[in-house]
Amino acid sequence: MNEKQLKIWLNKRKSHKTSLNHDALLAGIRKGEISALSSAITLLESSRSEDRLVTKQLITSCLPFAGKSIRVGITGVPGVGKSTFIEAFGLLAADQGRKVAVLAIDPSSEKSGGSILGDKTRMNALSQHPNVFIRPSAAGDSLGGVARKTRESILLCEAAGFDLILIETVGVGQSETAVHSMVDFFLLLMLAGAGDELQGIKRGIMEMADTLVITKADGDNLTRAKLACREYQNAMHLFPANANNWIPKALICSALEKMNIDKVLETIESYINQVKINGHFDKDRMAQDKYWLHETIREQLISDFYRLPEVKAQLKEVEAQLTSGRISSFDAAEYLLSLYYNQKL
Amino acid sequence: MNEKQLKIWLNKRKSHKTSLNHDALLAGIRKGEISALSSAITLLESSRSEDRLVTKQLITSCLPFAGKSIRVGITGVPGVGKSTFIEAFGLLAADQGRKVAVLAIDPSSEKSGGSILGDKTRMNALSQHPNVFIRPSAAGDSLGGVARKTRESILLCEAAGFDLILIETVGVGQSETAVHSMVDFFLLLMLAGAGDELQGIKRGIMEMADTLVITKADGDNLTRAKLACREYQNAMHLFPANANNWIPKALICSALEKMNIDKVLETIESYINQVKINGHFDKDRMAQDKYWLHETIREQLISDFYRLPEVKAQLKEVEAQLTSGRISSFDAAEYLLSLYYNQKL
Repeated sequence: MNEKQLKIWLNKRKSHKTSLNHDALLAGIRKGEISALSSAITLLESSRSEDRLVTKQLITSCLPFAGKSIRVGITGVPGVGKSTFIEAFGLLAADQGRKVAVLAIDPSSEKSGGSILGDKTRMNALSQHPNVFIRPSAAGDSLGGVARKTRESILLCEAAGFDLILIETVGVGQSETAVHSMVDFFLLLMLAGAGDELQGIKRGIMEMADTLVITKADGDNLTRAKLACREYQNAMHLFPANANNWIPKALICSALEKMNIDKVLETIESYINQVKINGHFDKDRMAQDKYWLHETIREQLISDFYRLPEVKAQLKEVEAQLTSGRISSFDAAEYLLSLYYNQKL
Repeated sequence: MNEKQLKIWLNKRKSHKTSLNHDALLAGIRKGEISALSSAITLLESSRSEDRLVTKQLITSCLPFAGKSIRVGITGVPGVGKSTFIEAFGLLAADQGRKVAVLAIDPSSEKSGGSILGDKTRMNALSQHPNVFIRPSAAGDSLGGVARKTRESILLCEAAGFDLILIETVGVGQSETAVHSMVDFFLLLMLAGAGDELQGIKRGIMEMADTLVITKADGDNLTRAKLACREYQNAMHLFPANANNWIPKALICSALEKMNIDKVLETIESYINQVKINGHFDKDRMAQDKYWLHETIREQLISDFYRLPEVKAQLKEVEAQLTSGRISSFDAAEYLLSLYYNQKL
């Protein structure tokens, strides 16, 4: 009975007349056509409700063909050499015959007017490789929206046959938690160097990393990189263990000299092997699906609340009363909630 | 105009006839009477709406007298010696003339049938000290509810003149984030010892700690404790810096031999001095007030959603469809949200 209701709901959507566009895109994606994949991802970013309907149908149609890639999150502050690393890393994997998609998540890009992947010229050689698809950051006004588009882009890329998906993010915001919750493996790029260990990385991100890579380990920097790597190796064995029994690694590499790029790929592959054997690969994927289900619900409910004109109009004043100690946090919450429920119910 | 509405709302509540009970409790608390403080905290835990109204009035009345304590969170897994440490630490502070309140936050205690502070016999000497008030964990069915009661208990203790509030928690659950968001200083207790560095502490908690204390540094264990301490010191300088410029410390101590307990107190005092001078004390407190305002709203909206019978009835089925790959996370969310909004709006 429950299942029936759900099926009716899905079928009603499916039977909508936009199916022509849907069929063409699906066929193109399944053939691995970059043009169809690009158009579909562009459509994901549209806020028009007809477009949303097509993309929802498309995601549902792609689901049976998705999920078969390795999803890798790559983060690190600006200056760490992310695009140079991704270019070297992506080329290596592509040359080995992998189909590599590079996506980016950067909710702040809208404000700064540019995306972190920028134009493809930043990864010139990579973008021209026949096995590679590069897509700049999805635009959006909320992390949740950008995260949804990125998650959906992953599914479309997988349905188009891409088997290694790299998701780039900047290690300074809140997007790392989102990326961490949509990838199988989380790579943190760091610079060596006394004094700048801190590098503006947000607290907590280091403990998310499955592997930490010290970049630019070449020339004068090599000794410092080795030293930093040893320090991180020591530090990381003090961290609490992952549920999946993986002990985070620390590596050095040089994208310039193509040194150890293969080690990073091998590390990821050995991780994937391990978690596929011990069952954590599927377990984590399922947990991520549930996380996004509930996260989407949370975000919708919360943004619905803060969008209410009555709440908008009084929030500043309530916060002022709160920080001046005239009202408690819980009273303040109750008052704002009363505005919401009065309007809504 | 906005401010006026808010005041009307607060006054309406204040004028309610329960004020007799309120006045007696407030007078007792302001005189520092333990019996009044105890009754008020018991009232916080009541779910009767008349009781809630009294406590809400009481919190509002206590607010002007609250906020003047140092709030310290103390966490660590079972076996680390938390109560022994808190007893030694609390006694030292109380003997110096501080008024010490010990609270606990442990949402799981309800299920396991006991609270982490248990009966007061665990801290026998401390509980008999005239300057000390010990209160076992607030019961409740949600972390949010327990957190609210603990936050409100802090305000009541402060209004009763307690100037050092210790909040105990078990370092294995989600309550650490809650505690971290209600204290000025977060202390993580750890055991020394090769192999058991991991100790079941949840990932991310280590990076929350303002100071890490290796307990039981006595007898045969002293050398290992010193070694572990050095390792943690090295590890912690690799962590990202706090916004408030505090560099987390690592210390050893022995509650048994009363060794270094004073060092822990000194460390906390020097932290408080530093953040009071650089303005982060007030800034953090204000940020915490806002955090709890918005967290309370979020929790209310979300629990309201999941309590809806239609959602409850179909959640399992939707999750099953999701994990078997027949529906995407976002479609699943949209479907459940449609049930909610159809009922509510």
